[in-house]
Amino acid sequence: MSRFYKKTSRKTGLSPGSLIYIGKEKREKVKISLINYDKEQILEKKLRSIEEAFAYEDTLPVTWINIDGIHQIDIIEKIGKHFKIHPLVLEDIVHTGQRPKTEDYEDYIFIVLKMISFDDQKNHILSEQVSLILGRHYIISFQEQEGDVFQYVRERIRKTKGRIRDSYCDYLIYALIDAVVDHYFIILEKMGEKIEFLEEELLENPKPHTLENIHHLKREMILFRKQVWPLREVLNSLIKDETELIHEATKLFLRDVYDHTVQVMDTIESFRDVLSGLLDLYLSTISNRMNEVMKVLTIIATIFIPLTFIAGIYGMNFKFMPELEWKYSYPILWVILIIIFLFMFIRFKKKKWL
Amino acid sequence: MSRFYKKTSRKTGLSPGSLIYIGKEKREKVKISLINYDKEQILEKKLRSIEEAFAYEDTLPVTWINIDGIHQIDIIEKIGKHFKIHPLVLEDIVHTGQRPKTEDYEDYIFIVLKMISFDDQKNHILSEQVSLILGRHYIISFQEQEGDVFQYVRERIRKTKGRIRDSYCDYLIYALIDAVVDHYFIILEKMGEKIEFLEEELLENPKPHTLENIHHLKREMILFRKQVWPLREVLNSLIKDETELIHEATKLFLRDVYDHTVQVMDTIESFRDVLSGLLDLYLSTISNRMNEVMKVLTIIATIFIPLTFIAGIYGMNFKFMPELEWKYSYPILWVILIIIFLFMFIRFKKKKWL
Amino acid sequence: MSRFYKKTSRKTGLSPGSLIYIGKEKREKVKISLINYDKEQILEKKLRSIEEAFAYEDTLPVTWINIDGIHQIDIIEKIGKHFKIHPLVLEDIVHTGQRPKTEDYEDYIFIVLKMISFDDQKNHILSEQVSLILGRHYIISFQEQEGDVFQYVRERIRKTKGRIRDSYCDYLIYALIDAVVDHYFIILEKMGEKIEFLEEELLENPKPHTLENIHHLKREMILFRKQVWPLREVLNSLIKDETELIHEATKLFLRDVYDHTVQVMDTIESFRDVLSGLLDLYLSTISNRMNEVMKVLTIIATIFIPLTFIAGIYGMNFKFMPELEWKYSYPILWVILIIIFLFMFIRFKKKKWL
Amino acid sequence: MSRFYKKTSRKTGLSPGSLIYIGKEKREKVKISLINYDKEQILEKKLRSIEEAFAYEDTLPVTWINIDGIHQIDIIEKIGKHFKIHPLVLEDIVHTGQRPKTEDYEDYIFIVLKMISFDDQKNHILSEQVSLILGRHYIISFQEQEGDVFQYVRERIRKTKGRIRDSYCDYLIYALIDAVVDHYFIILEKMGEKIEFLEEELLENPKPHTLENIHHLKREMILFRKQVWPLREVLNSLIKDETELIHEATKLFLRDVYDHTVQVMDTIESFRDVLSGLLDLYLSTISNRMNEVMKVLTIIATIFIPLTFIAGIYGMNFKFMPELEWKYSYPILWVILIIIFLFMFIRFKKKKWL
Amino acid sequence: MSRFYKKTSRKTGLSPGSLIYIGKEKREKVKISLINYDKEQILEKKLRSIEEAFAYEDTLPVTWINIDGIHQIDIIEKIGKHFKIHPLVLEDIVHTGQRPKTEDYEDYIFIVLKMISFDDQKNHILSEQVSLILGRHYIISFQEQEGDVFQYVRERIRKTKGRIRDSYCDYLIYALIDAVVDHYFIILEKMGEKIEFLEEELLENPKPHTLENIHHLKREMILFRKQVWPLREVLNSLIKDETELIHEATKLFLRDVYDHTVQVMDTIESFRDVLSGLLDLYLSTISNRMNEVMKVLTIIATIFIPLTFIAGIYGMNFKFMPELEWKYSYPILWVILIIIFLFMFIRFKKKKWL
Repeated sequence: MSRFYKKTSRKTGLSPGSLIYIGKEKREKVKISLINYDKEQILEKKLRSIEEAFAYEDTLPVTWINIDGIHQIDIIEKIGKHFKIHPLVLEDIVHTGQRPKTEDYEDYIFIVLKMISFDDQKNHILSEQVSLILGRHYIISFQEQEGDVFQYVRERIRKTKGRIRDSYCDYLIYALIDAVVDHYFIILEKMGEKIEFLEEELLENPKPHTLENIHHLKREMILFRKQVWPLREVLNSLIKDETELIHEATKLFLRDVYDHTVQVMDTIESFRDVLSGLLDLYLSTISNRMNEVMKVLTIIATIFIPLTFIAGIYGMNFKFMPELEWKYSYPILWVILIIIFLFMFIRFKKKKWL
Repeated sequence: MSRFYKKTSRKTGLSPGSLIYIGKEKREKVKISLINYDKEQILEKKLRSIEEAFAYEDTLPVTWINIDGIHQIDIIEKIGKHFKIHPLVLEDIVHTGQRPKTEDYEDYIFIVLKMISFDDQKNHILSEQVSLILGRHYIISFQEQEGDVFQYVRERIRKTKGRIRDSYCDYLIYALIDAVVDHYFIILEKMGEKIEFLEEELLENPKPHTLENIHHLKREMILFRKQVWPLREVLNSLIKDETELIHEATKLFLRDVYDHTVQVMDTIESFRDVLSGLLDLYLSTISNRMNEVMKVLTIIATIFIPLTFIAGIYGMNFKFMPELEWKYSYPILWVILIIIFLFMFIRFKKKKWL
Repeated sequence: MSRFYKKTSRKTGLSPGSLIYIGKEKREKVKISLINYDKEQILEKKLRSIEEAFAYEDTLPVTWINIDGIHQIDIIEKIGKHFKIHPLVLEDIVHTGQRPKTEDYEDYIFIVLKMISFDDQKNHILSEQVSLILGRHYIISFQEQEGDVFQYVRERIRKTKGRIRDSYCDYLIYALIDAVVDHYFIILEKMGEKIEFLEEELLENPKPHTLENIHHLKREMILFRKQVWPLREVLNSLIKDETELIHEATKLFLRDVYDHTVQVMDTIESFRDVLSGLLDLYLSTISNRMNEVMKVLTIIATIFIPLTFIAGIYGMNFKFMPELEWKYSYPILWVILIIIFLFMFIRFKKKKWL
Repeated sequence: MSRFYKKTSRKTGLSPGSLIYIGKEKREKVKISLINYDKEQILEKKLRSIEEAFAYEDTLPVTWINIDGIHQIDIIEKIGKHFKIHPLVLEDIVHTGQRPKTEDYEDYIFIVLKMISFDDQKNHILSEQVSLILGRHYIISFQEQEGDVFQYVRERIRKTKGRIRDSYCDYLIYALIDAVVDHYFIILEKMGEKIEFLEEELLENPKPHTLENIHHLKREMILFRKQVWPLREVLNSLIKDETELIHEATKLFLRDVYDHTVQVMDTIESFRDVLSGLLDLYLSTISNRMNEVMKVLTIIATIFIPLTFIAGIYGMNFKFMPELEWKYSYPILWVILIIIFLFMFIRFKKKKWL
Repeated sequence: MSRFYKKTSRKTGLSPGSLIYIGKEKREKVKISLINYDKEQILEKKLRSIEEAFAYEDTLPVTWINIDGIHQIDIIEKIGKHFKIHPLVLEDIVHTGQRPKTEDYEDYIFIVLKMISFDDQKNHILSEQVSLILGRHYIISFQEQEGDVFQYVRERIRKTKGRIRDSYCDYLIYALIDAVVDHYFIILEKMGEKIEFLEEELLENPKPHTLENIHHLKREMILFRKQVWPLREVLNSLIKDETELIHEATKLFLRDVYDHTVQVMDTIESFRDVLSGLLDLYLSTISNRMNEVMKVLTIIATIFIPLTFIAGIYGMNFKFMPELEWKYSYPILWVILIIIFLFMFIRFKKKKWL
């Protein structure tokens, strides 16, 4: 269940703003990359220390600092000091169990998103926190580990053409959010295929394993939903927000992401409905099969138990059993047995059991 | 499950406004038709290229350009350029996985609807995206393929009489939306008949097949609901919208379509409730039948197993079994067997098992 | 399922305002009656043509025209022309599949209600559309067929005393709506009795038939709810509406009907809950009974199958079976059989199966 | 089901404001009592006629008239005339099937509450209507029959000390509502104990009777909820209402009752959840037991049926069966039987059926 | 069920503001501790009587009085008198069955929270009421018994550094609320582990015990939810409240706690969903197993019952049974038996029962 919340007990009792990294322990060094661009120029760099980044802040209009890895608290602290970020924001960045949310601090907007990926080996959903800080001339993005979702955004920046180079930070933040949301569709597709596969399996040859898979998928859906649900609110408040940091023109684009988010939610709900339907179907199928099994048993037992009883009667060793002495007893008995058999058979036919 | 969402992974990573057609691949040429009319005149034309259409824009007050097929990106792009349509709108037109929605861009209103049809062979619902652009003097409608739903609207335009010829673009857009929504009732009717048929089958002679059909219909209902649900919001915002593009008088008509949409939703919900009821009924019926089967088995077994035991006793070959030698053992035994039989029979009668 | 929506396919493709009667075909002549009254005078008349009614419009302050039967389109059209009713309203009057709703057209208010009756033979709910037009000095009511629900209102008008004669059109419209809503309680009472009967049957002697009846009632409840649910909204908007057509004093009375509607909804919801409970109870009862049946079978089989086996052993014809020759084999065997029997019996007692 | 609504058919067709008592028929005389007090004085009286009460109206600041029994219409009518109460209010007082509600008529506020009691014999909830009229200097309370819930309020008035004597009518009305709501907790407690008892019974020794009790309690919960649910709204509108009749200071106290009401609703919801859980538990327990029973049957049958077959083989009377003649056939057979037995036994052990 | 509400019947009939302690009876003396601090100074004291505390009120800017134990009514009364607390507040403090809520009395804000702990022995959730009064220069906190949740806050105060010493009462109240909410996560963690354990047990080796545990956890979740749900509202109204007692800067921190509360609710809901899923899984697993059991029984019975019948036939003692005399009867019979056996076996294979 630990994927449903982050262990926070380690943190209990600390004052707010205490930067304690909450997440899996990691050893790799944090990677810092910087992209600095306007319509004509572009500068891309891997940095060794965060201080290098501060120099670029006031050069070209858009500065995007991407931090892959948040387990080095000192980097976060330095960023906090330099950009005057509220301690609660810094805390939320490293404490990765946040709900998606947005907070407007006038000078900058803080956005928390969840990146969803699918672990094919463990066969379950993984969620990673992406924190974004949108300042007037800079964007800082924090990922828990190096990912490739922002790769496409980077490529679009590198091409001289395209709206992204004509626009400012707010458009870049839209592009980043859009990249995260677009990625959800890939997960949905995977889920959809799994559901389709389960449905076919269920209709053709249900196994106990099928049940476990339905249950498993249902739980993953609960988890997925939990991560995506608040995003709607996030985008809505970004659109409604009367901040100077986001231009009207960009809001049209954010509205587009909002639409996508709603679509993701709709599909998740539909999937949940379909999975519930599959579970019902599974239960009904089992009941049906049980019924089949019981019918076979009942038919066999009902036909042969009385016959066996009659055979038993004439297997008795009483001295005085007149039937035993008669000449045609045996063939007559066979006739009787066959009549009983046919009678039973016809009754079952009538009851549509056969 | 792929009917629940459109594959979008192909598109991931592209900048917004990139026109990539999302849908089944098609080879047929896109069909462009134009109707240009006012109260007295009417001009109807099949066009070979979209450029021809642009000439008619400023002639008669209402120009309706209908595009059947959206897989030729260049046509969409030309329209976009000529009518100054926002790139996001163009993207939504070709990316057919949109939710029904409306967006007001001051100079024009963009509306996305879902046309629902029923594929009798595959026995499932098909949804097709209809995009409408309402400008001051023009309407552009995009369908995924040639359909006949707008046919009735065309015929009404052709007749000189009728409100449609007295009115402007906003009334025509109403007529188009109305045509789409009216079509939903036909699907509902089909669904209703199927449900009725299933219900009868269930009460008279349920088969495993019945269960699958209920499940199937339930899933189609989920899909139908998903496509129609947002329409309510669409119509509501068209009615509430303070745009100059829609006259007050037309809003009365839109309110009428809104009522129809609510009716469609109500009926879908009722159908879902009825289908859930059918599933419960099916499960209960199976349980009932199982009960019947088990009773028969139990009655037969309970009566004959003890009798067979007694017959077995006197089938033993012990040398010293006094009963075997007695003269009336055999008839006495029969009396005992019949008494046991009657006793059991009466008990079952009392328990109302017979 | 056709009771859940009206067949509308006949109408698809027509322009709005086209008057096509949607409902069962009828041959009887439409009945038109008129009541014209003020505090002191009253005039009641059966009319042969609708034109006769128009003459009375400006005489006494309240003119109530009641139309029983809406299948004669020309009457509706004449009314429409004379009172300047919007074509959409006329369409809604004859197209009886409307949701309950109210629409304010300044000069008049259009109200759609559903009259519910119970068909004892088919054992299901019937819903009939009642359309009301409230003008400044007139009320026009349309019923699908002659009914007796408005009879009580007529009688109250005939009595010289009573608030109804002191008041204007708005109070009469309240009286008509109230009559319709009051009628719902009679249906609820019938439903309630049926549920009570089912519950008793279920607790005393459930039959497969009981299940079908629960299912049937549940479906009727879905239908009932669908017809009544929107009424709440209708009354609310009548109360909130800032129209001159309804006086403040009358709104107090409308609030009273509103309360009744909420009560009807509450009771429907409770009935649905109770019916769901009954279904659960039915399923559990069946499971319980199955358990009983299985226990009997298991007890009998578990006791006698081993005993029969032992009897079978000594029924074998081996030449060399020492036990067969012993003198006390037979009585000893009986002792053994009885011990086994008692052992089994005690075990079942302990397991509380007996 | 009649406890879910009041029979109203008797009333259908009457004009509003017609005072027809709806409820059980009663013969006892209506009891009228009066309490008249201010900070220093208090006058308590049992009245023989309602007219006596009217004299006290303008003496001390708070006059509380309590009417136990509403089946004497003339009393209600006299009150109505004297205090100028709207006919709809009078109707609602005698027509006891009202939903809890509050209506502000400027000069007075009309409040309908439900008093809940528990009938230990019939083992179900009883609901009684309490109507309160809050005027500027008087409160009139109507109960269906003499109850003791208001007794505590009376006692508090009698004591010279206490806020109630310092305050006005609005505080008294609060005290009365509070008394009614406080009484709900006693019912909840009773319900809670019953649920706890059922749960223990279910875990230790479930019987068919347990099921009926769960079902019964669930239905009572539906009824309880129905009666209390609207109260929230009632209190909320009393608090929000901008009437002069209720002072700001008293609203604090009403807020307190509101909190209690929410608590009652919360607990009812929790109880419903717990009861649903119990039902699931019951069903699962039955399934578990059935499983146990079936296992026993299957083990016995699976072991002994094959053994019996083998014994049957050697019970056959063929002349030429070589085994019958062999010397060690019988002991060898026993060995074979025991081997089969052990083999089966071990298999069941492995499957964890034993 | 008594954990779902507090016994209040003892209190019924008392006037509001009567201080009657509702909770378990206790004997220990109430512990009063005081912390008085500003940026530079700090004074910590255990007090013997509450009067001692009043002296510190106006010294340093923040005075925090913590009362462990609320069963000594006189202490509460003295506090009430000294700080001019509304009697309803005092009542709510000692009557521990309150819902979490906040009430703004201008001079002070009253907050009720629920502290949740987990009783490992009884294996269930315990809820304890924490009441907080936030005045301009003082905070009074009431706990039902001595706990350690506020210990961490105390330690943070003791350290000279940290925001808490720079801030005022409103920040301290935030710290206290935060401590309570943070503690919920520990409970969630425990619950999560239990669910995870149950799920593994269910998939590997479900026992009747597993069912009871799922049921138990579900009920605890209902209880947990009931205690936490209203907290959202509480924090929201603290944030929205236009009181001078809470500074804007502190509201940022309260928003943070609000986020945590939403997270707690989200997780509770997810856990409830997962538990429902587990129950379904359990039921399906049982059905599956039953199916397995029944198949074994049916296979054995279906194969051996007919064979036994045949053996029974030739065990009959008729004088004239030609087969008995034939030489190869016995081997031929074996062949027939084996053929029947194989036929049955193959049929079961085909049906996939084997």
